[in-house]
Amino acid sequence: MSLFADLLSTVFDRRYRGASEPDRKGRTIEELCADLISNSGEVSGMVLARLILDRYAAMEWEERRAFFSYLTNSQGINTTSMRTALDTYEAHQDKSSYKALMDLVEPPRQELARRLNQVPGATGQLVDMRADLLHMARENPEFAMLDLDLRHLFASWFNRGFLVLRPINWESPAEILEKIIVYEAVHAIHSWDDLRRRLQPTDRRCFAFFHPAMPNEPLIFVEVALTKGIPDSIQGLLADGRAPLEARNADTAVFYSISNCQSGLAGISFGNSLIKQVVADLSRELPGLKTFVTLSPIPGLTRWLEKQGRPLPDDPTAQRQITAHYLTLAKRPDGGPVDPVARFHLGNGAQVHAVHASADTSSNGIDQSGGVMVNYLYDLAQITQNHEKFATVGTIAASSEVRALASAVTLQNA
Amino acid sequence: MSLFADLLSTVFDRRYRGASEPDRKGRTIEELCADLISNSGEVSGMVLARLILDRYAAMEWEERRAFFSYLTNSQGINTTSMRTALDTYEAHQDKSSYKALMDLVEPPRQELARRLNQVPGATGQLVDMRADLLHMARENPEFAMLDLDLRHLFASWFNRGFLVLRPINWESPAEILEKIIVYEAVHAIHSWDDLRRRLQPTDRRCFAFFHPAMPNEPLIFVEVALTKGIPDSIQGLLADGRAPLEARNADTAVFYSISNCQSGLAGISFGNSLIKQVVADLSRELPGLKTFVTLSPIPGLTRWLEKQGRPLPDDPTAQRQITAHYLTLAKRPDGGPVDPVARFHLGNGAQVHAVHASADTSSNGIDQSGGVMVNYLYDLAQITQNHEKFATVGTIAASSEVRALASAVTLQNA
Amino acid sequence: MSLFADLLSTVFDRRYRGASEPDRKGRTIEELCADLISNSGEVSGMVLARLILDRYAAMEWEERRAFFSYLTNSQGINTTSMRTALDTYEAHQDKSSYKALMDLVEPPRQELARRLNQVPGATGQLVDMRADLLHMARENPEFAMLDLDLRHLFASWFNRGFLVLRPINWESPAEILEKIIVYEAVHAIHSWDDLRRRLQPTDRRCFAFFHPAMPNEPLIFVEVALTKGIPDSIQGLLADGRAPLEARNADTAVFYSISNCQSGLAGISFGNSLIKQVVADLSRELPGLKTFVTLSPIPGLTRWLEKQGRPLPDDPTAQRQITAHYLTLAKRPDGGPVDPVARFHLGNGAQVHAVHASADTSSNGIDQSGGVMVNYLYDLAQITQNHEKFATVGTIAASSEVRALASAVTLQNA
Amino acid sequence: MSLFADLLSTVFDRRYRGASEPDRKGRTIEELCADLISNSGEVSGMVLARLILDRYAAMEWEERRAFFSYLTNSQGINTTSMRTALDTYEAHQDKSSYKALMDLVEPPRQELARRLNQVPGATGQLVDMRADLLHMARENPEFAMLDLDLRHLFASWFNRGFLVLRPINWESPAEILEKIIVYEAVHAIHSWDDLRRRLQPTDRRCFAFFHPAMPNEPLIFVEVALTKGIPDSIQGLLADGRAPLEARNADTAVFYSISNCQSGLAGISFGNSLIKQVVADLSRELPGLKTFVTLSPIPGLTRWLEKQGRPLPDDPTAQRQITAHYLTLAKRPDGGPVDPVARFHLGNGAQVHAVHASADTSSNGIDQSGGVMVNYLYDLAQITQNHEKFATVGTIAASSEVRALASAVTLQNA
Repeated sequence: MSLFADLLSTVFDRRYRGASEPDRKGRTIEELCADLISNSGEVSGMVLARLILDRYAAMEWEERRAFFSYLTNSQGINTTSMRTALDTYEAHQDKSSYKALMDLVEPPRQELARRLNQVPGATGQLVDMRADLLHMARENPEFAMLDLDLRHLFASWFNRGFLVLRPINWESPAEILEKIIVYEAVHAIHSWDDLRRRLQPTDRRCFAFFHPAMPNEPLIFVEVALTKGIPDSIQGLLADGRAPLEARNADTAVFYSISNCQSGLAGISFGNSLIKQVVADLSRELPGLKTFVTLSPIPGLTRWLEKQGRPLPDDPTAQRQITAHYLTLAKRPDGGPVDPVARFHLGNGAQVHAVHASADTSSNGIDQSGGVMVNYLYDLAQITQNHEKFATVGTIAASSEVRALASAVTLQNA
Repeated sequence: MSLFADLLSTVFDRRYRGASEPDRKGRTIEELCADLISNSGEVSGMVLARLILDRYAAMEWEERRAFFSYLTNSQGINTTSMRTALDTYEAHQDKSSYKALMDLVEPPRQELARRLNQVPGATGQLVDMRADLLHMARENPEFAMLDLDLRHLFASWFNRGFLVLRPINWESPAEILEKIIVYEAVHAIHSWDDLRRRLQPTDRRCFAFFHPAMPNEPLIFVEVALTKGIPDSIQGLLADGRAPLEARNADTAVFYSISNCQSGLAGISFGNSLIKQVVADLSRELPGLKTFVTLSPIPGLTRWLEKQGRPLPDDPTAQRQITAHYLTLAKRPDGGPVDPVARFHLGNGAQVHAVHASADTSSNGIDQSGGVMVNYLYDLAQITQNHEKFATVGTIAASSEVRALASAVTLQNA
Repeated sequence: MSLFADLLSTVFDRRYRGASEPDRKGRTIEELCADLISNSGEVSGMVLARLILDRYAAMEWEERRAFFSYLTNSQGINTTSMRTALDTYEAHQDKSSYKALMDLVEPPRQELARRLNQVPGATGQLVDMRADLLHMARENPEFAMLDLDLRHLFASWFNRGFLVLRPINWESPAEILEKIIVYEAVHAIHSWDDLRRRLQPTDRRCFAFFHPAMPNEPLIFVEVALTKGIPDSIQGLLADGRAPLEARNADTAVFYSISNCQSGLAGISFGNSLIKQVVADLSRELPGLKTFVTLSPIPGLTRWLEKQGRPLPDDPTAQRQITAHYLTLAKRPDGGPVDPVARFHLGNGAQVHAVHASADTSSNGIDQSGGVMVNYLYDLAQITQNHEKFATVGTIAASSEVRALASAVTLQNA
Repeated sequence: MSLFADLLSTVFDRRYRGASEPDRKGRTIEELCADLISNSGEVSGMVLARLILDRYAAMEWEERRAFFSYLTNSQGINTTSMRTALDTYEAHQDKSSYKALMDLVEPPRQELARRLNQVPGATGQLVDMRADLLHMARENPEFAMLDLDLRHLFASWFNRGFLVLRPINWESPAEILEKIIVYEAVHAIHSWDDLRRRLQPTDRRCFAFFHPAMPNEPLIFVEVALTKGIPDSIQGLLADGRAPLEARNADTAVFYSISNCQSGLAGISFGNSLIKQVVADLSRELPGLKTFVTLSPIPGLTRWLEKQGRPLPDDPTAQRQITAHYLTLAKRPDGGPVDPVARFHLGNGAQVHAVHASADTSSNGIDQSGGVMVNYLYDLAQITQNHEKFATVGTIAASSEVRALASAVTLQNA
């Protein structure tokens, strides 16, 4: 993919970059934005876009807040004009009235973002800009509208059809591998040697989605272990001295870690597509694989038990019973499962397959779920049906074993 | 770029393709579209999208017209709901009311197109779909609204930031080269040998923009000749037995042919960016280049003279005078130049540099302009200023020589 | 592979090239060669090597002949020194005496060729030089010794372990495809459209061996048709309007054309390795393939029949009988089959599988074999055994059907 | 380059590999070698070659020694036959007698090595085999002849014309980077972070030679620092917190570490070519570079001073004087400089430019040269002349400053 990086950073662009550093006319960033949007042709658009992005990159936090306020307040929709255009369109529906209306329903900041995106590297900078915005939106709820606009635009740009799946392995560039270390969000990677243990053995795989305009930035990645049978412990799975399996002898692919990489792409979902694509690619490469399953954390269990006012029992069977209950019966007000990881996999059409005590004995694992973990099963023959029932009537698919465990416990407030 | 093609056509996708051919539930394409849009999750979206695209591909012309009518009439905006949402938003501007409004101002067919785009190869199929639509829109003016929506979406997808410039040369894949032969729209390429003469000599270059999701389809390309001095004849420039120049000895780069390749991307402009990027890349590679100029056809000259009721004179000087007049003074009602190629280059900030008689003696050249051609000059120091004046007050930049030629002729109805 | 080409043509090399054109010291090519060999370090080796290769490239035919005479007469072995070194070594076998001997048994022109090979592009130039040499060796038999040295060196350089197999298809660079057109030696390719018919359909494949130092030059290539059943006519196989088969539905791979590309590599055999590698790759890609077979010309049949003083009969069965006889029983003085194509495939371990009349109705096919063609079968289970028997006792493997045909005819002088 | 790795590991090869593990006929490795050489065709050559290489890989140290003894004693030249062939050739010099002689002067083990090299990955295994051999040759001097044969063969295979220069940077595959860490022989790399400091900053470069048949194995690499002015301290050059320079602002390229990677390629020199190629590439990329210089260790200084019976003085000026003396005047019996690094750079045509005290304060730097280091200057205008004088009459080129320092000291035994 470095071809892209090469192609996109030409002399011309560098020349623009050089020119941009000082704006000789002394315009503010707001004036530059106004110029960029008003610019009827495209001739000086690239210079302006580069100037604005450079200016933003050099800004302090409070300056950025002011910039977002400007975009929120001065580059939003004009409801008066929109209403007039709507009246006109309703009175006479033709190309002209439709175009006039469509031009007005989109806030100018969307077109601004598209024009900023002309310059090489801009896509990643805009994603980072939204990460800043989301951070500030906690204190500035009025930024939510600007955020909705960016999210809408990014959903179009990062459409599944534009993503590229790439294997991540020990032949991958170091600059991507170091990002895998940083972005791993489930089971921390402690060193390059630790990383190598996740990538190099014959029974380990990793895959990531990339976007062609951000060739060195993974968007999301999944780590996979190839095993014989379904594993019941993450420490066992990742044990240091274990003997690797020949890939062709594996019957099971275990998705044991899925990490989103770009906080600026929050709310744009890649996980479902990633898992399905990886299932497809692994099936093709390794016909011996019969089972696709996760070994997943249960991040909400301890917190939920605390709310229930009862601790996790010590007995492993009791642990598994209450966990099964939690995963299959504990619901949010909107009817969805309380556990966020459960929501993700069940929403994808997976089912709760098995629950294991003492499966993650790391301090994080103990903290969030008393060490209990869960396998979600991706059964290709059931995925669509599971998903439909989950999406329409909230049914949670589970193995009979898990259902039996769940029914063995009675809770007051479940 | 074939990496992309590879990556995107996985077994999984083929499996979907296989599954899609017959829809076991017997749904119509309209029902499939409704399902795809309503589908709250994304689990079966890819299967549905593939089904719809396959169904479309197999349709007769009249079935396609019916499908576009469906999209026009049933997947457009709902003005009643939009008005209600606008009222609510004006009463209370917050995230929720904004989101509700924004969801309604976008017609559902835009989201439909985004979901169709999930499957590998869909982008090119959607572009082809718009080519069909544009063809029918002559007879079905009501399709103009659907077309505006697709154009809006494609402008986002084919944003300059996502395009990749690639040289086209004799090392390029044959499947791309044969498209260059087909798409060349200015000076026809008659055979592979003819193509080779445009690509292989040391003083010839060709560049095209590509989109990563359509890796084997050029979007637009430009052919360049490296010369000493500014040429005054296309037949001279392309002469069969000529001795090629060493690239490093050239002082001038001549853009002698620019062709758009995708009729489904009509109205989305790439030419300005392409020329500037190529100027930048050539400047870097060949510091000896001092002049960037076109050798352009004048497609509207004969037609305009006919309207004027006077033929092109036989005298070369008189030909050049009236052509200079035509290019710099003949205006449309909107104030722009009559000639479409002039509009393009002047809009990019070029100036009319020189006019040559007997410059294109092909039958096409004689037909459209009596063999007269024109050089537009891209003077980097003047481009922005030329563009601004042209865009704001309609000033047409021209060399003093051309202005002198133009002023030598007086026309009644100019 | 163009990576290589890129890497190898650096400014430095071009600088050398620039420097080399005139030799400022006015040395002859012989003096330059003497300098290059004597040069104890390597500092100016590259400059000298480039000078010599440029000088050679600019030479007339008779100058080249003089240059080969020089290499033959002045850069060969010195038998007197060799004998002395042999005496010394026999008297005392140690590192020093061995090194002295080994330095002398190799003619200096071998080291000269290795030093010439330092410069980018030299490998191909040296191969072309041997092509010239082989051409002249018909008139200058004394060049045979020089040729043996080059052949020995090239056998080392073009070792199977250094060759790369690449598919040739419609995505291949035009500059390689045009060489396929030129080099095709069995069934001529008449145009780019004809080439496309050999490469683009789903049931056609082509593979070539390349050497990394000649990345744009195929060494040998084979064209393959995927079929249901074993074909009996080349015109049928290549028919213009035929409906292509889906590759996965084929049960047979037919090698219908194998062409060597570099006359300068005569005597260095790649065909056996190529066929086996292609069998392996196709087996992996298309598990449905059960039969690997050729559809081969019989270039020596007509000539042999003429020597026998009898024409090919008109009756197809009689044609097949005499052809089967020719292929399995007609021998050279050394015991090998008369037919050169038979020698190649039988030497690889294939067997004569079937003989077809009216199988090549082109004028060339009629001329060389009255239109008769033959299938040689590559049965993986039999290859080693067939080869051993052929190589040791000259047994020609043939199907019972072919043996029956052959035994039906009695010839006087067979 | 992973393309190569891909291409070379096909199913066929794996099939061979699978088949090879047990030799069903129970042959010894010697019998397998005899079969491989005798094999007139090539049909089963690949299977045999794979068997032999696998067998070797599984051998204990003493078995390998026995194998080398076999190659030394049973696969060497036959002097009796050679003498007969020499007689015949002298009596009648023609193609046939020459071929017979040439076939005999090459020991069969050379052809054996070429045939072993047919299988994918064999080249690297043969290089490793020679590393074993060199290790044992200290105890088994009789292996020197076998070693000469392998070295001769490898010199042909690893000809400069077949090597590929590749930049090593933070985008390089991790599996290559970890080898850089291991192979660095001058200034140890302590961690991945340390490696990153050598590769990622804008003023650091690294280049390596690769051979296409060993795509993941660097043969030799050089680390380069881009600086303003010539540095006088390695710790300063590699300091952790230093501010990187923009590459285009550098005027000097400093080669501060050159490491050979393959002990099995000992005696085959790549360093001279590497430095010149890197000078060429950097000159092209960064026209601002005016000076190409090393910052080199002086590994023999302490040892030589000890032999002289005098310690390194404490005074920096005195240190520099005696070092200048050592580098320019201390000679071996053969007339070359005592210092091995000096021999390398002076042999390449560089000159001794400057000597610095306290330039390497690491324990290794103190041990080998009391912390003194030297700059060798590669002055393109002087290289050829320097080299000629050094190679012919042993003249050591040095700056006037260094010559002045050297002349300030008088030593008894210098």
